[in-house]
Amino acid sequence: MPYAVKVGKVSSVADLTPLFNPKSVAIIGASNNPEKIGNVIVKNIKECGFSGQIYPVNPKEKEIEGYTCFTNLSEIPEKPDLAVICVPAKHCSNIMEECGKLGIKAAVVITAGFKEIGPAGLEMEKRLVSISNRYGIKMVGPNCVGIMDTHIPLNASFSAGFPQKGDIAFISQSGAMLVSIMDWSRSAGLGFSRVISLGNKAVLDEADFIDAIADDPVTKVILCYIEDVHNGKHFLEAASRASKKKPVIVLKSGTSQAGAQAASSHTGALAGSDLAYETAFTQAGIIRARSMTELFDLATCFSYQPLPQGDRIAIVTNAGGPGIVTADAIENSNLTMARFDKGTLDLFREKLPPEANIYNPVDVLGDAKSDRYRFAIETVLKDPHVDSVVVLVCPTAVTDAENIARQIIDLHEKYPDKPIFAAYMGGVVLAEGSKLLTKAKIPVFTFPEPAIYSIAGMNKYVRSFNDEREAGDLDFDDIDRNRVKAIFYDVIRDRRSVLLGSEAAAVAEAYGISAAPIKLATYPEEAVDLAEELGYPVVLKVASPKIMHKTDVGGVKIALNTADQVRNAFIEIMENVQRYLPNVIPHGIEVSKMMPRGTELIVGMTRDVQFGPLIAFGLGGIYVNLLKDVSFRLAKGLTRNEITTMISETKAYTLLRGYRGEKPADLVSIIEMVARAALLVNDFQEINEMDINPVFAYKDGYSALDIKITIDI
Amino acid sequence: MPYAVKVGKVSSVADLTPLFNPKSVAIIGASNNPEKIGNVIVKNIKECGFSGQIYPVNPKEKEIEGYTCFTNLSEIPEKPDLAVICVPAKHCSNIMEECGKLGIKAAVVITAGFKEIGPAGLEMEKRLVSISNRYGIKMVGPNCVGIMDTHIPLNASFSAGFPQKGDIAFISQSGAMLVSIMDWSRSAGLGFSRVISLGNKAVLDEADFIDAIADDPVTKVILCYIEDVHNGKHFLEAASRASKKKPVIVLKSGTSQAGAQAASSHTGALAGSDLAYETAFTQAGIIRARSMTELFDLATCFSYQPLPQGDRIAIVTNAGGPGIVTADAIENSNLTMARFDKGTLDLFREKLPPEANIYNPVDVLGDAKSDRYRFAIETVLKDPHVDSVVVLVCPTAVTDAENIARQIIDLHEKYPDKPIFAAYMGGVVLAEGSKLLTKAKIPVFTFPEPAIYSIAGMNKYVRSFNDEREAGDLDFDDIDRNRVKAIFYDVIRDRRSVLLGSEAAAVAEAYGISAAPIKLATYPEEAVDLAEELGYPVVLKVASPKIMHKTDVGGVKIALNTADQVRNAFIEIMENVQRYLPNVIPHGIEVSKMMPRGTELIVGMTRDVQFGPLIAFGLGGIYVNLLKDVSFRLAKGLTRNEITTMISETKAYTLLRGYRGEKPADLVSIIEMVARAALLVNDFQEINEMDINPVFAYKDGYSALDIKITIDI
Repeated sequence: MPYAVKVGKVSSVADLTPLFNPKSVAIIGASNNPEKIGNVIVKNIKECGFSGQIYPVNPKEKEIEGYTCFTNLSEIPEKPDLAVICVPAKHCSNIMEECGKLGIKAAVVITAGFKEIGPAGLEMEKRLVSISNRYGIKMVGPNCVGIMDTHIPLNASFSAGFPQKGDIAFISQSGAMLVSIMDWSRSAGLGFSRVISLGNKAVLDEADFIDAIADDPVTKVILCYIEDVHNGKHFLEAASRASKKKPVIVLKSGTSQAGAQAASSHTGALAGSDLAYETAFTQAGIIRARSMTELFDLATCFSYQPLPQGDRIAIVTNAGGPGIVTADAIENSNLTMARFDKGTLDLFREKLPPEANIYNPVDVLGDAKSDRYRFAIETVLKDPHVDSVVVLVCPTAVTDAENIARQIIDLHEKYPDKPIFAAYMGGVVLAEGSKLLTKAKIPVFTFPEPAIYSIAGMNKYVRSFNDEREAGDLDFDDIDRNRVKAIFYDVIRDRRSVLLGSEAAAVAEAYGISAAPIKLATYPEEAVDLAEELGYPVVLKVASPKIMHKTDVGGVKIALNTADQVRNAFIEIMENVQRYLPNVIPHGIEVSKMMPRGTELIVGMTRDVQFGPLIAFGLGGIYVNLLKDVSFRLAKGLTRNEITTMISETKAYTLLRGYRGEKPADLVSIIEMVARAALLVNDFQEINEMDINPVFAYKDGYSALDIKITIDI
Repeated sequence: MPYAVKVGKVSSVADLTPLFNPKSVAIIGASNNPEKIGNVIVKNIKECGFSGQIYPVNPKEKEIEGYTCFTNLSEIPEKPDLAVICVPAKHCSNIMEECGKLGIKAAVVITAGFKEIGPAGLEMEKRLVSISNRYGIKMVGPNCVGIMDTHIPLNASFSAGFPQKGDIAFISQSGAMLVSIMDWSRSAGLGFSRVISLGNKAVLDEADFIDAIADDPVTKVILCYIEDVHNGKHFLEAASRASKKKPVIVLKSGTSQAGAQAASSHTGALAGSDLAYETAFTQAGIIRARSMTELFDLATCFSYQPLPQGDRIAIVTNAGGPGIVTADAIENSNLTMARFDKGTLDLFREKLPPEANIYNPVDVLGDAKSDRYRFAIETVLKDPHVDSVVVLVCPTAVTDAENIARQIIDLHEKYPDKPIFAAYMGGVVLAEGSKLLTKAKIPVFTFPEPAIYSIAGMNKYVRSFNDEREAGDLDFDDIDRNRVKAIFYDVIRDRRSVLLGSEAAAVAEAYGISAAPIKLATYPEEAVDLAEELGYPVVLKVASPKIMHKTDVGGVKIALNTADQVRNAFIEIMENVQRYLPNVIPHGIEVSKMMPRGTELIVGMTRDVQFGPLIAFGLGGIYVNLLKDVSFRLAKGLTRNEITTMISETKAYTLLRGYRGEKPADLVSIIEMVARAALLVNDFQEINEMDINPVFAYKDGYSALDIKITIDI
């Protein structure tokens, strides 16, 4: 199944200059009534300090907010760069048509009442999309709050309040969320570069904006709130490219359980509906926020501070308890407590009071004033074994929170390359110091844990950044694609979607996967011949895609060692099946070589509608759904390095390396096998589900035993 | 090993009336110097509005803060109820002695410089404890900030600022944390009933205060910040009793990884150092906060709102996005989205605008004013399928946040039994409404997730509250304790700590656990006789506590079916051991019956220094440490119901119920076996570690195969 394609998607990377940096803006549906959106937008554009031309359009007005009002677009003396449309939904396509004819290249459709209200709205929306595509208009919305750029400046939205200038871009699928955040940011003191309300994202979507903002020199961090992704391929490409340049932090909501239940394969059942997003985000280098608080904590830290060069954190505190709480958070986040340099310890021993704790967390004691804080902070900032510094301040009788803030600010200017964070643990007494820090862009929290979780997010980004992915190393010169096509042809002609075991094994073999030999016999003597050819012992299994639980109907006989046993087993199986399932006519009986047991693995594939095939690897056998020891990756763009990482994330890896004195398995051949499976499902989008379970891993090589493949043409 | 006992612990439940409700307070070390703690304390007691007598004691002063100052305690015209001591450490024991002689029954020792500074300080602290015990003085500290009671009122501390009157008690092992929180609470508007700084908790500790505050009528919630517990037994008793009356919320820091690594048993290695706390908290009905933010969010919600009667939550919102984010948080917290009553839906269909979403989350739309909010909130408050209500407010052009707040407040008064929470998603525009809510004790958050996590904590409490524990149902009348003592006697006489397999099996048998028959043979013919007695097939295994990996030295022979095979195996094993380990003289060779395979389980025990034996249950076999499918409970006070819950928490449970068509195992006998193991380790505190792995579970009964017991006398 191909990626779901959005109605009329323009696939080229969008140049969004006319949207964010227009020389002139027309507002169609402008109004003098202050309760109308058409008035708020004109006012917002005017009041934000926009330096270009403003052209309100409304046949009933002469002047709006001091600007000459035009009867229609064509009356305007120049061609506007940007059209902001807030006329009723039924008029929108006419206006868009007019824009197209005039050569206007960008439009923000504020108006609601499209796809979100049902089939009639969807029809109107499709018309908008088709006009937009015909004329190449970059369209935002419909059903959106608008867009903002604080640096141009431009506020083409009906949001109350324009944010402070800053370096955070915020892309939101929820208009309400956007308006909320704009209001919240004013009290939190956070600045934004660009703010985009996606609305119904009929033409431009999150991927287009991520792509464009990746190259925006004033944006340091990209934040997204999304509820879904329409075009997984484009999203992945855009996010992967952007995250190499700046952090992309996403809060994805709507992570419900539905969907996973329908899956019929082990791999599908294990994956769940959110897993494709999770995997895609990881592989694209996206940092996923788990809550709104986390989204904005991360945004603040990325915006205000440089990236840490490693995970070693130093704590400077004036009290023990908060130091322990912070150290716990560091441990829980898989970060490291810095171990100080000898020079640092010597200096502390010499200059701090004897009761001070000179090891991390450095406790400068309750009577510490700003000079002692400064000394301790500067010393750890200089220590080469420290990557980030967290300063904790509790209000004691002598604590001078403002002066300590000034020292932190000064030291950050002196050592701008090492990130520094503060927890001002109190309210009233520390409020002024805390304000100074925020103003100077030192992230400050009331309690220490969020500081640590934010540092963990920054470290995750730095690490993902360092994982250079070498593309295209999953290529093999021994693949027989025609053989796979021939098998699929037989299956389709047979009006089946489930491959027989012998067919699935042949598909695997065509891709160089060592499947346990398995052949189809249609009469007893053929089974005996095949058994002799494969070598004893063999297994006989009824071949029918209609029989799900073969053992239950007496359809399986194992450990057959002689021609007689094979002959009798064939007849017995056929009799059993006829007795239990009189209406099923089996394709025959599959004869397979009984392989020696090895470490049981599963290699599988499930397909996500947005992100394509997901490869699974883990502990196999009959308990696979119980143990849930499975790691996933998108098959697309998978590399050998990532396969190795994927394998190492499972408990199966511990077994493969030789657990409790057992011999290590042939890991190289397992990696190769996963690579071949990934290539197979990338090449054949019609493979809907695949389970290879078990794969027996041996000291030398492996054997893929039971391969289930479902195709969907 | 017995519970660690604290120096001179007074074990009776403390009557803390003289501490919190004294008629008179003496401050020894009072001062006129405003920079001295001795001055701050007098001022704090005076300014909080304390109505009793205040007696400063300082030989150098005549008057302090308007009160007559006394040269020493005996000069005071009456016997003070409470002594607050802030003289230098070296004088503290003299003062305590004086207090004792005068019959003063309560003391707060503020002074630092005791245990925390090393051996010299520890000596002084021991002296304080011994005086305190001799005279029966309830002593807080030393090295603490003091205590507060806002209802008496009394502020016997040097904390800057006295909290608002409220119903939250806060017990803190960190003085700095306490002072921080007092400062923070003033800006957050949170009120407290009692505040206790534990300091070194030389006499009174968290358990004493939890115990006392359990009965305090003005306290609704007990909050604790602790770094360790000195007396696990007392703590468990106090917390279990208190949590039946009111929620006890604990932030336990110092959850480091050290300690777990030393464990030699599987069970010990799986447990880790934090697990005993985790298990003890769960069994005592304590709610564990994971961060400071969570601690105070929970405190606020418990303090402000009634307990929810179930886990079904209704969301009322004026925007879609935030509703989805909230629904996600509900799903992630294992809470339930309420499904409305038909009446509710009919009413919504009739009275809300047609575009509104009438299902949960109820979207009253962006143009909703306070009347529509009121209607929707009241309707869900009345719905019998709703247990808690969360109101989300985003700032749109028409949102009147203050009036919405007034409606919420009014409705909460009208429906006081159903908890209600708000997320005011914004800053400036919503600030006044948010303040109104806080003042009226409606918990209000900026983002919705913390509201949901707090509701989850409240639900957890309600559930734990409902789990009535019937004590003492682990009693059996077929236990042979003398047989166990006799075996332990032999082991000790042998100067061993590890039991032989045959000894461990005998111990298990004495407690009615079906161990696979195993006997010790010291020469070949004895092994043959035992094999004939047990019945073939048998296993022979070298018996020596010095040989850890018996297979590696050729010390194990399995599936022996004849007398000849047994004879040869005996000789071969002895030869192998002599060759590989010439210095080891085995105790003999253990002959055991080879049992049919069943579902492999582990039942084990590790002992925590504070909380005593922890029982483990889970998937057994050689992969036990890899799969980590183990659930733990404190053995003390364990009931059959809890054993059933414990088993049901593991994946092993899925297997036992009959996985993928297998026959279910005999769960009743497994529960009985765990109960017997728990009784054994409760009875014999000298059992240091125990692993029974594997236990084979069968359709009928089970068999305990390999039992390892270590004792420590």
